[in-house]
Amino acid sequence: MMTRAELTEKIVAHKMMTGFKWEDVGDAIGKSKEWTCAAMLGQLSLTKEEVEKAGNVMGLNFSPDETALLMTVPYRGSLPTQIPTDPLIYRFYEIVMVYGSTFKSLIEEEFGDGIMSAIDYDMSVTRIEDPKGDRVQVMMTGKFLPYKSY
Amino acid sequence: MMTRAELTEKIVAHKMMTGFKWEDVGDAIGKSKEWTCAAMLGQLSLTKEEVEKAGNVMGLNFSPDETALLMTVPYRGSLPTQIPTDPLIYRFYEIVMVYGSTFKSLIEEEFGDGIMSAIDYDMSVTRIEDPKGDRVQVMMTGKFLPYKSY
Amino acid sequence: MMTRAELTEKIVAHKMMTGFKWEDVGDAIGKSKEWTCAAMLGQLSLTKEEVEKAGNVMGLNFSPDETALLMTVPYRGSLPTQIPTDPLIYRFYEIVMVYGSTFKSLIEEEFGDGIMSAIDYDMSVTRIEDPKGDRVQVMMTGKFLPYKSY
Amino acid sequence: MMTRAELTEKIVAHKMMTGFKWEDVGDAIGKSKEWTCAAMLGQLSLTKEEVEKAGNVMGLNFSPDETALLMTVPYRGSLPTQIPTDPLIYRFYEIVMVYGSTFKSLIEEEFGDGIMSAIDYDMSVTRIEDPKGDRVQVMMTGKFLPYKSY
Amino acid sequence: MMTRAELTEKIVAHKMMTGFKWEDVGDAIGKSKEWTCAAMLGQLSLTKEEVEKAGNVMGLNFSPDETALLMTVPYRGSLPTQIPTDPLIYRFYEIVMVYGSTFKSLIEEEFGDGIMSAIDYDMSVTRIEDPKGDRVQVMMTGKFLPYKSY
Amino acid sequence: MMTRAELTEKIVAHKMMTGFKWEDVGDAIGKSKEWTCAAMLGQLSLTKEEVEKAGNVMGLNFSPDETALLMTVPYRGSLPTQIPTDPLIYRFYEIVMVYGSTFKSLIEEEFGDGIMSAIDYDMSVTRIEDPKGDRVQVMMTGKFLPYKSY
Amino acid sequence: MMTRAELTEKIVAHKMMTGFKWEDVGDAIGKSKEWTCAAMLGQLSLTKEEVEKAGNVMGLNFSPDETALLMTVPYRGSLPTQIPTDPLIYRFYEIVMVYGSTFKSLIEEEFGDGIMSAIDYDMSVTRIEDPKGDRVQVMMTGKFLPYKSY
Amino acid sequence: MMTRAELTEKIVAHKMMTGFKWEDVGDAIGKSKEWTCAAMLGQLSLTKEEVEKAGNVMGLNFSPDETALLMTVPYRGSLPTQIPTDPLIYRFYEIVMVYGSTFKSLIEEEFGDGIMSAIDYDMSVTRIEDPKGDRVQVMMTGKFLPYKSY
Amino acid sequence: MMTRAELTEKIVAHKMMTGFKWEDVGDAIGKSKEWTCAAMLGQLSLTKEEVEKAGNVMGLNFSPDETALLMTVPYRGSLPTQIPTDPLIYRFYEIVMVYGSTFKSLIEEEFGDGIMSAIDYDMSVTRIEDPKGDRVQVMMTGKFLPYKSY
Amino acid sequence: MMTRAELTEKIVAHKMMTGFKWEDVGDAIGKSKEWTCAAMLGQLSLTKEEVEKAGNVMGLNFSPDETALLMTVPYRGSLPTQIPTDPLIYRFYEIVMVYGSTFKSLIEEEFGDGIMSAIDYDMSVTRIEDPKGDRVQVMMTGKFLPYKSY
Repeated sequence: MMTRAELTEKIVAHKMMTGFKWEDVGDAIGKSKEWTCAAMLGQLSLTKEEVEKAGNVMGLNFSPDETALLMTVPYRGSLPTQIPTDPLIYRFYEIVMVYGSTFKSLIEEEFGDGIMSAIDYDMSVTRIEDPKGDRVQVMMTGKFLPYKSY
Repeated sequence: MMTRAELTEKIVAHKMMTGFKWEDVGDAIGKSKEWTCAAMLGQLSLTKEEVEKAGNVMGLNFSPDETALLMTVPYRGSLPTQIPTDPLIYRFYEIVMVYGSTFKSLIEEEFGDGIMSAIDYDMSVTRIEDPKGDRVQVMMTGKFLPYKSY
Repeated sequence: MMTRAELTEKIVAHKMMTGFKWEDVGDAIGKSKEWTCAAMLGQLSLTKEEVEKAGNVMGLNFSPDETALLMTVPYRGSLPTQIPTDPLIYRFYEIVMVYGSTFKSLIEEEFGDGIMSAIDYDMSVTRIEDPKGDRVQVMMTGKFLPYKSY
Repeated sequence: MMTRAELTEKIVAHKMMTGFKWEDVGDAIGKSKEWTCAAMLGQLSLTKEEVEKAGNVMGLNFSPDETALLMTVPYRGSLPTQIPTDPLIYRFYEIVMVYGSTFKSLIEEEFGDGIMSAIDYDMSVTRIEDPKGDRVQVMMTGKFLPYKSY
Repeated sequence: MMTRAELTEKIVAHKMMTGFKWEDVGDAIGKSKEWTCAAMLGQLSLTKEEVEKAGNVMGLNFSPDETALLMTVPYRGSLPTQIPTDPLIYRFYEIVMVYGSTFKSLIEEEFGDGIMSAIDYDMSVTRIEDPKGDRVQVMMTGKFLPYKSY
Repeated sequence: MMTRAELTEKIVAHKMMTGFKWEDVGDAIGKSKEWTCAAMLGQLSLTKEEVEKAGNVMGLNFSPDETALLMTVPYRGSLPTQIPTDPLIYRFYEIVMVYGSTFKSLIEEEFGDGIMSAIDYDMSVTRIEDPKGDRVQVMMTGKFLPYKSY
Repeated sequence: MMTRAELTEKIVAHKMMTGFKWEDVGDAIGKSKEWTCAAMLGQLSLTKEEVEKAGNVMGLNFSPDETALLMTVPYRGSLPTQIPTDPLIYRFYEIVMVYGSTFKSLIEEEFGDGIMSAIDYDMSVTRIEDPKGDRVQVMMTGKFLPYKSY
Repeated sequence: MMTRAELTEKIVAHKMMTGFKWEDVGDAIGKSKEWTCAAMLGQLSLTKEEVEKAGNVMGLNFSPDETALLMTVPYRGSLPTQIPTDPLIYRFYEIVMVYGSTFKSLIEEEFGDGIMSAIDYDMSVTRIEDPKGDRVQVMMTGKFLPYKSY
Repeated sequence: MMTRAELTEKIVAHKMMTGFKWEDVGDAIGKSKEWTCAAMLGQLSLTKEEVEKAGNVMGLNFSPDETALLMTVPYRGSLPTQIPTDPLIYRFYEIVMVYGSTFKSLIEEEFGDGIMSAIDYDMSVTRIEDPKGDRVQVMMTGKFLPYKSY
Repeated sequence: MMTRAELTEKIVAHKMMTGFKWEDVGDAIGKSKEWTCAAMLGQLSLTKEEVEKAGNVMGLNFSPDETALLMTVPYRGSLPTQIPTDPLIYRFYEIVMVYGSTFKSLIEEEFGDGIMSAIDYDMSVTRIEDPKGDRVQVMMTGKFLPYKSY
C-alpha cells in the first residue's frame, strides 16, 4: 500500500513536470491556494468530491487507495526533523526562536492572557513588489482564545 | 554584573507594575511597537540615544551597565528550549511544523528557488475585530533572496 | 529579584508547614481548586485582588514584587525536562504516548477534523471510592475547534 | 511478514472506506469503544475470539498472521516522536507540560504520596453539547497506588 | 532557602565525615536500609517523627526548613541526565537497554499482559560471598498489575 | 538477507502461534530460561549445537543464514529509543532514574568504590504468590568490580 | 519511484567508476565546480538544459524521472544527523562551535548588527601548496544583510 | 572565583563601552585580529606577556586570577547549545548542513582521503566592497591531513 | 543497488561462516589487522588491487558494484546512535566521559595546547596474558598537532 | 558549601599558577600520574592520607570540607555535554564513533563474546618522539570479561 508521504512525492513530482498552479487547483474546489497546497502536501483532509475535481485540474486520476489517503485526517507534521534543516523553512523557525517572546508580549498586551489559534486559522503568502527587491508577505490570522477561568 | 536576561526580567516586571505600552516607547524612539518590544526583550540593539528616550517613557533610569547591555548586539534566541513549551509560542512552532512545506511550495512557485529573509524583515501584530471572536493578525514581510548561481 | 520558580517553592513549602488546602484558597477567590492550584504553581495569572485574598487564606503576606510576579502572564511549562522523570507526572505522559492515536481516532470519529482546546479548557481531579482501592478521576473538557477551511 | 504498524494502517484505511464505528466493534466483543479503538491501533492485545468477532463487524477477514499480530502483546507507544507534532495529540502533551505539577499537587493533597495507575486504568471520550460550541470531555480514572514503605 | 539537592549534598558529606550507616538510620525509624537511603537522597518523603529520629542517629539537628524539605513529597528523578554517565548507575541502564525485551517476554509469559509496579515496589541490595569475587545481589519485587479491560 | 531484527520477530510470532515456553527451550540447551530468552531475542550468541537443539523444541528449522545470525555476537541494545516508551520496560528505566543514587550509595557503603558487573551477571524473573496480588520478583547478581588503582 | 538520495548515490558511484571531474561538469553548464558539485549532491536545482549537458559529460543518460528530481527545488540538508559524525565534515562543525562567537564579534565590529547571507553566497575550495604540507583553502563570501529597523 | 565565561562577558562589555578594536589588540601582541578575538573570547590561551600587553591596549588591568584564566588552555566550545540559535552563527551551521557533503567531495577529489585540519588552521574575516551591497569574506585554511595507512 | 551497510553485513556474516581472520586479510594486502578490519567495516577506503587480494583471502568474489563501494571514501561513523548502546563499545565511550578531562590535562602538560590527531593515527588491539584474567590492550598513537598561532 | 566542580577548578587554577606536575603528586602518594590526575579532576576517590600528601606537593592546604570532597566517591562523568565540544576530547569520541565496530570485531575475534573492562582498567599517556612530529601514545588495558552463561 502506498503511504501518504509517497503520494505527496508523486503529486510534487507531477507538479514539477506539468507546471500546474496551486491557485488553479484551489479555484476548482473553492478553496484558497494556501489551503489547497497544504491539503495536497498531507496536512489537511479533502472530501471525495474535492479529490476528483482537484485530480482533474492536476491531470492525475487518483486510484481508490489514493483517494482514501487524501480523505483521511492526517497525522500532521510535515518535516523530517524537529529543528528544520531546509533554509527556507528554518527562517520561520528562527523567527519563532528570536521573536517568540515578542509575539507573546504584544498579543498579551493587546488581548490579555490567551493564545492565537493555529486551528481556527488562515494564512496567505503574497508577493509585494519593491524596487529594492520584491518581498514575501506572509499573513497569518487566528482567533484569539482566552484562557478559561472556572 | 547584571545579565541581559535579568535586565529583560526587570523591564517586564516594571511594565507589569506601571502599565506602559510598547507603542508609546516606540513613538519616543521613532520605531514600531514590534521593533521596540523585540529590542527591549533582548533581540535587537539600541543606540545610546534610544536607550535614554525609551527609559524616560518607561520610567526607568538605566545605569551605565544597563545602557551598555541594551546597546550590545545580543546573542539572539529568546526561548529556554529548542521546542517551546509555552502554549502561545508553541502555536507558532506548530505552524512551522505543519505548514513549513506549504510555505516552501508557495514561495518557490511564486519566486523561484530562494528564501524569505528573516533579517531584512519586519512584522506587525494587530487585532482584527470579528463578531465570532476577535482575531490576531500577524503579518511578516521579508525580502526574497534567490540562491546565487556562480 | 525573586524568580517565579522561587516564589512557587516558597508557596509549596508554606503549604507543607501550615497545611492549607487549595480548595479553601479557591473559595476565597471564587475559582475551582484546580484553577487555583495551577495559578499558584505559576501556570495562570491572578488579579491584584485575587492575590490579596489568596494571601490571606494561605497566611502569606505577598510583597509588591511577589504580587507583580503572581499577576504576570507566565512563560508556561511546569517541568524541568521535556520527558518528565517524576513517576506521577510520567504516567500522564505515558497515557499520551500510548493512547494518543486513540484520542485522535475517537475525537475525529465523533467531531470531524479538529482538536480539543487546551486553552478554552477546564479540568477536575476527584477521588472515586472503590472497595478494591480508591481511584483518581481526572476529567478534562475542552472546546472542540474544527480546522478552518478558506 | 506484515508488521503491526502496517496492519494498523490497513485497519485505518478500511475504516475510512467503509465507515464502521469503533462502538459497533466494541459491542461485538463486549468492550468499550475506547478499549477497542486502542486495541485495534496496536496498544492492547485481543483474544482469538475477539479478533474474529471484530473482523466480522469491520468487514475484514484477518489472515492467521494478522490474527497472531492482533493477539501479541505489543511494544507500546503509538507515536513516531517523543514530543508529538500532531496538533490534536500535542494538546494532551501540553496539558502534561503545563498542568503536570498541578496534577501532582492535587493528587498528593487528596491521597498522599503515590500515583494514578496508567495500567489499572480506563478512559472515555464524550461529546458535551454546549451552545457556545460543543466540548470534548475526556475522563480518565486510574487506581491510586501509594508508595510502599518497608 | 536551601534546596532539596543541597540538603542531599549536606547529608552525603556528613555521612562521609562521620561514617554512619544507612542500616542504623533505618533501624531507628523502623524501615529497611534501602527505603531509608532513598528517602534521605530525596526520592521518598518522611514524617516529622522520622526526621527527628533519623537526625539523632545521623548526628544532624535538622532545622524547621530542612524538616519541611524532608517531609515534602519530592519531584522524583535522582540523576542529572536522562542517560546516566556514572558507570555504577549506567550498568543498570545498560541492563534495561539490553535485557528490557527479555523482562517483557518473561513477565508476559508468566503473568499475561501487564507490568511490574515500580510504586508498590520494594528492593534490597546484598553482598553474596563468592570465592571468585563477591557479588552484588539486587532483588526487586513489585506487584503485578494487569491491563484493565472495560 | 534477513536481519537479526526480522529473525527475532519471526521467533516471537512463532511463539505466539505455538505457545512454546522459554523454559523448555532452555532445558534443551542446558541454560536458564532467562539466558535463553535473551539469546533468542538477539542479545546473546549461541553455538551451532544450541541453535539446532533450540530449533527442535521451538518447532523451527533454522536455515544456514538464520543459524549464522544466531551464532553472531550481536550489536546489543534491544529497544528502539534511548528512553523506552513501553510501560513494562519504562518501569525499569524509572527505577534507574529514581533509585540510581540509592544503588550507588548502598553498593559503595558495602563494597567500596566500584560497580556491579553487567557482564559477569545473571538474573531471574519469578512469580511470588501474594494474597494481595501476586508479585514479580527480579533478582540480579553481578560480580563486584573495584576500581583499579595503579 | 527513485528518491533524490538514491539518485545522489548513483551519481557518486558513477563518479567513482569513471573518474569524471566536477570541474568538467561545471564547465559544460557554465557554473563553478563548487556550485555544480552541490547541485549534483542534491542541494541546488538545475534547469532541463543543464541536466542534459551535465549528463553528457558525466556519461549518464538521465531518465525523465531523474531529470525531474534534478530540476526540483530540494529539501536541503545533506547530512544524516544534526551533529555530523564524518571527521572531514565534523571539522567544519567544530569551527562553528569554537569560532562562532569570534565570527560574530568580527563581523559585527566591521559591519554592524546583521549577518553574512548563506543564500546570496558563493564559495571555493582550493589547494594551497606549502612545503610543510599542502593546505585546503575554503573561501566563503556572502552578502552582508543588516537587521532592518522600522 | 570568576569563571572564564564571566571574564569573557566583562571583556565584551568593556569593548562596548570603550570601542577598542581587536586589530589594535592584535597588533600589540603580534597576532592577527582573528586569533586575538578568539583568544579573548576564551578559545585560545595567551602567555603572561600577551595578557599584559593586551590589557594595556584594552584599558583593562587584569588581576592575577584573571591572568591565570587567560593563560589556561580552555575547554573549547563557545556556544550555549549544540545547534546555535543566533542567526549570524546559525548561517555557518547551515553552510555545514547544506554544503558539508560538497566540501567532502571536493576536498577528496583534490587531495584524496583525509581532512582539513581545524587545529593547524587559520582564518580571516574581511569586507569585500560591492556596489550591490558589501560582502563578508571568510577565508579558512587548514593543513590537509591524509588518513594514515599502516 | 547494494548499500555500504549491506556490504558490511555480508562480509561479517561470511566471516562468521568461514572463520577467516582479519590478520590473514591484512597480510595479503600489506596492512595491519586493525587497518584492514576498519576498512572492511566501511571506515577506510581500499584500492582496486587491495579489494581483489582481500576478496581472495576471504573467499568472496566482489562484483564491480561492491568493488566500487569498497573503493569509495566512506561517510564515516560506524554506530547507529550517538551514544552507543552496545556494552563493548559503550565502555570506550565511558572512558571518554570519565577520563576525557584527564587526557586533556596530561596531553597539555606534556605537549602544550593542541590535540592528538585521529587522522594521522594508528592503533593496535592485543591480548596481554595475565594469571588473574587476560587483559585487552588498546594502544592508540596519533601525531600531536599544536594550535597554530598567526 | 563548595561543590566538587569548584574544587576541581581551584586545583586547575593553582596548577596553572604554580606549575606543579601530576607526576610529582603521583610519586608522593604512590600512584601513577594518570590515576592521580583523574582523581584530582574528580573521577576517583582518595584516602585521607593521600589528600594530605598530595596537598603538600601541590602547595594546597585542603580544608576539612575539601578533604571530604576528595574522599567521597564521585558521581562520575567529567564533561558538560554528552557529545564533547572540546577538540582534544572530541578526537577520542570520534575514535569511538569511527572505530567502535572495529574494536568490537577485533576483541571478539581474539577473546570471544565479552568486553574490555573500564573499571579493572589502567591507562598511560606518553610522548613518542618522531622526526616527522612527536606523537601522543595512549595505552589502555582492561581485563577481558566474558559474558556469563547460566
